[in-house]
Amino acid sequence: MTTITAVEVVDLRFPTSATAAGSDAMNKDGDYSAAYVVLRTDDPQLSGHGFTFTIGRGNDICVMAAEQRALPLIGCSVQEVTDDLGGTYRRLKSDSQLRWLGPDKGVEHLAMAAVMNAVWDLAARRAGKPLWRFVADMTPREVVDVLDLQYLSDVLTAEEALRMLEEARPGRDRRIAELEADGYPCYTTSAGWLGYSDDKLRRLCQEAVDQGYRHVKLKVGADVEEDVRRCRIAREVIGPDAHLMIDANQVWDVPQAIEWVGRLAEFSPLWIEEPTSPDDVLGHAAIRAAVAPVGVATGEHGMNRVLFKQMFQAGALDFCQLDSARLASLNEILSVYLMARKFDVPVCPHAGGVGLCELVQHLSIIDYVVVSGSLEGRVTEFVDHLHEHFVDPCVVENGAYRVPRAPGYSAEVHAATLETYSFPFGAHWASPGVAAQQVV
Amino acid sequence: MTTITAVEVVDLRFPTSATAAGSDAMNKDGDYSAAYVVLRTDDPQLSGHGFTFTIGRGNDICVMAAEQRALPLIGCSVQEVTDDLGGTYRRLKSDSQLRWLGPDKGVEHLAMAAVMNAVWDLAARRAGKPLWRFVADMTPREVVDVLDLQYLSDVLTAEEALRMLEEARPGRDRRIAELEADGYPCYTTSAGWLGYSDDKLRRLCQEAVDQGYRHVKLKVGADVEEDVRRCRIAREVIGPDAHLMIDANQVWDVPQAIEWVGRLAEFSPLWIEEPTSPDDVLGHAAIRAAVAPVGVATGEHGMNRVLFKQMFQAGALDFCQLDSARLASLNEILSVYLMARKFDVPVCPHAGGVGLCELVQHLSIIDYVVVSGSLEGRVTEFVDHLHEHFVDPCVVENGAYRVPRAPGYSAEVHAATLETYSFPFGAHWASPGVAAQQVV
Repeated sequence: MTTITAVEVVDLRFPTSATAAGSDAMNKDGDYSAAYVVLRTDDPQLSGHGFTFTIGRGNDICVMAAEQRALPLIGCSVQEVTDDLGGTYRRLKSDSQLRWLGPDKGVEHLAMAAVMNAVWDLAARRAGKPLWRFVADMTPREVVDVLDLQYLSDVLTAEEALRMLEEARPGRDRRIAELEADGYPCYTTSAGWLGYSDDKLRRLCQEAVDQGYRHVKLKVGADVEEDVRRCRIAREVIGPDAHLMIDANQVWDVPQAIEWVGRLAEFSPLWIEEPTSPDDVLGHAAIRAAVAPVGVATGEHGMNRVLFKQMFQAGALDFCQLDSARLASLNEILSVYLMARKFDVPVCPHAGGVGLCELVQHLSIIDYVVVSGSLEGRVTEFVDHLHEHFVDPCVVENGAYRVPRAPGYSAEVHAATLETYSFPFGAHWASPGVAAQQVV
Repeated sequence: MTTITAVEVVDLRFPTSATAAGSDAMNKDGDYSAAYVVLRTDDPQLSGHGFTFTIGRGNDICVMAAEQRALPLIGCSVQEVTDDLGGTYRRLKSDSQLRWLGPDKGVEHLAMAAVMNAVWDLAARRAGKPLWRFVADMTPREVVDVLDLQYLSDVLTAEEALRMLEEARPGRDRRIAELEADGYPCYTTSAGWLGYSDDKLRRLCQEAVDQGYRHVKLKVGADVEEDVRRCRIAREVIGPDAHLMIDANQVWDVPQAIEWVGRLAEFSPLWIEEPTSPDDVLGHAAIRAAVAPVGVATGEHGMNRVLFKQMFQAGALDFCQLDSARLASLNEILSVYLMARKFDVPVCPHAGGVGLCELVQHLSIIDYVVVSGSLEGRVTEFVDHLHEHFVDPCVVENGAYRVPRAPGYSAEVHAATLETYSFPFGAHWASPGVAAQQVV
């Protein structure tokens, strides 16, 4: 019997604030970070890797929360933990003292995501399959058993989930073959960070077009005149037929969002992303009604399945951008995908940061193969940085994610990266010039 | 110039799980706890005390978050911090890296509440006034300057807030005199914890009636037949005219809540409290429509002002039970009170736990004196335990909170309590029999 012998959680931080990559109107100086969980077993060939994503300070708090959340796994058999992924999830979630700190939101939920992402990685590695294939090979009943459906039954029951999953069965192999040939379509955010100059913006938009992208996203929300100028540049470069998306990262109140998006409507954006507080279901519904045909997208800060349920009920979204490291792993994410299918809202997962692209490629494949059976209106985010730190990095060609083939969730980080970027004592952070600047 | 010289945050835990006090259908074994913040100054007579409330495990995570959040206060002049309470709040809130972990929810928001509660205590002590008086003596313009109105302008603008506060000015002194004579009405939860026997329930209900209470609250949600029996006992004892409230602590999905409350409607509860997920605005609206005339109450897990805004917009609440240590101090709480006034929803703050009664007595007075000018439909929770640990404990007589007179927010804990109940090395937790049982 193989046993989980230890949980290691690493405070991993990359000094991305040194460049303007990742800059937007809300988050001006993020150091892309991960609370990185490794589940060790007494089989040296078998371990589970997962993380949640943060942007710097407070990553240590998530590390502490993940350590505590994962504690019940130590000493469990790998078989017991990975054969009953629904039971494992419910067991970790059942701590009512920790529940008080949420429930299902903030640091505790990020930590739950990190730990359960590692559990899913462990399960897929044990099966010798990439995660998307591991899920595709589950029966509809097995998928239903892992779902977190608490508080959803007014919109999604277990019976309804089962029926939808069974309906999606036919054509599964054909869809897998299609993705293996063509990949899953993606778009790039790398062109449009707020801190970039006009020349750099123009050059990066042109490169995106040259690389086969049909969608380009710009950060907006700091200055409306600048946004008009930058949208004009982007539209000129990508032409009238490609899609331009804009992203305000939550800087506006509802009336301000409606007014500002109105100013940018002439550039025909496909969507306005995060126009206001991620918690404001009714606000997003009001914005959507006012700015159509510009679509409304949000979800990277969508805290849990109950929020998404309401977003769908209220007709607040044209695009659902759930986050693979903020929702509490596939147990919760699959419930959101099923609700999205029911309400016919395409899911275009948030990615970027560090490692999120590696995770969401699996989610998008699972959506197409197991849940929705559709690519319509779907395009998954891709940001081209920090992939070199992963053992099995995602591969993007011609504006599409290639299907991953290695066993697991593609979440494992190189040992050398951990040595260099663990905080505060990794080689980078402990080097004399850098260490002197740290406060916390 | 007086300066803030240090921030001390204590992990304070009381072993309440040893008795059934505090037991409900969701929280069976809480150890009432506080992440307790002390702002020290170079004047030994002046310090600020505040906390957030938790129920045990994870309190250490809140301590760590509060330490980091409070860091910018060290070295600041007390005058600078307390003369501009809006600016201090915005400065602490402006850390965009920490914002990623919420925003405005979970551990980080609890920590912000703890720190800013201590800042408000410091401000009131410096002024030599109890907190409620300190706020009552602010001009409407000064009150508006401290409000967190971000994401609220579709419902509440600064101009509208100012107008409401000015309208509430007349009669202020009369209302203060009234409260000083009669106190602020409260109800007791001490009778109805789920773990109590029928005999104990009957006896405690009778004691509540004898002590002058007109409202009694029972925990429900574990077993509907037991709930019927316990509601019948309570109604028999308190008679047909007193108010019975029931509290499910979030155990139900929406359809289940509607069905279960239907079974208990014969006992004419004034409200059903926390029928489902605290995040589910539309769910509460659906429940409210279905169970009327039973009222719907929620808020102790209401994460932030954006959630409450939507609860009011959706007509989801009959009673708003905001929490003094979960919302980020008066800066956010006053915004919720103003929205509640606009939508004519009475605020009946959550209390109990440890120290929450000490805080909410100030809030309820501020509501009556400064914001709503009304006592109609308002009754504030009171739970009679753990008050002995406070230097200036709340006093309840004849079913009403007496008006506090000592300077500050009544949040200071006795030094002997800190020595005994700090975790894990206080005298109680480090004692041989207890220490051996600790896991984390």
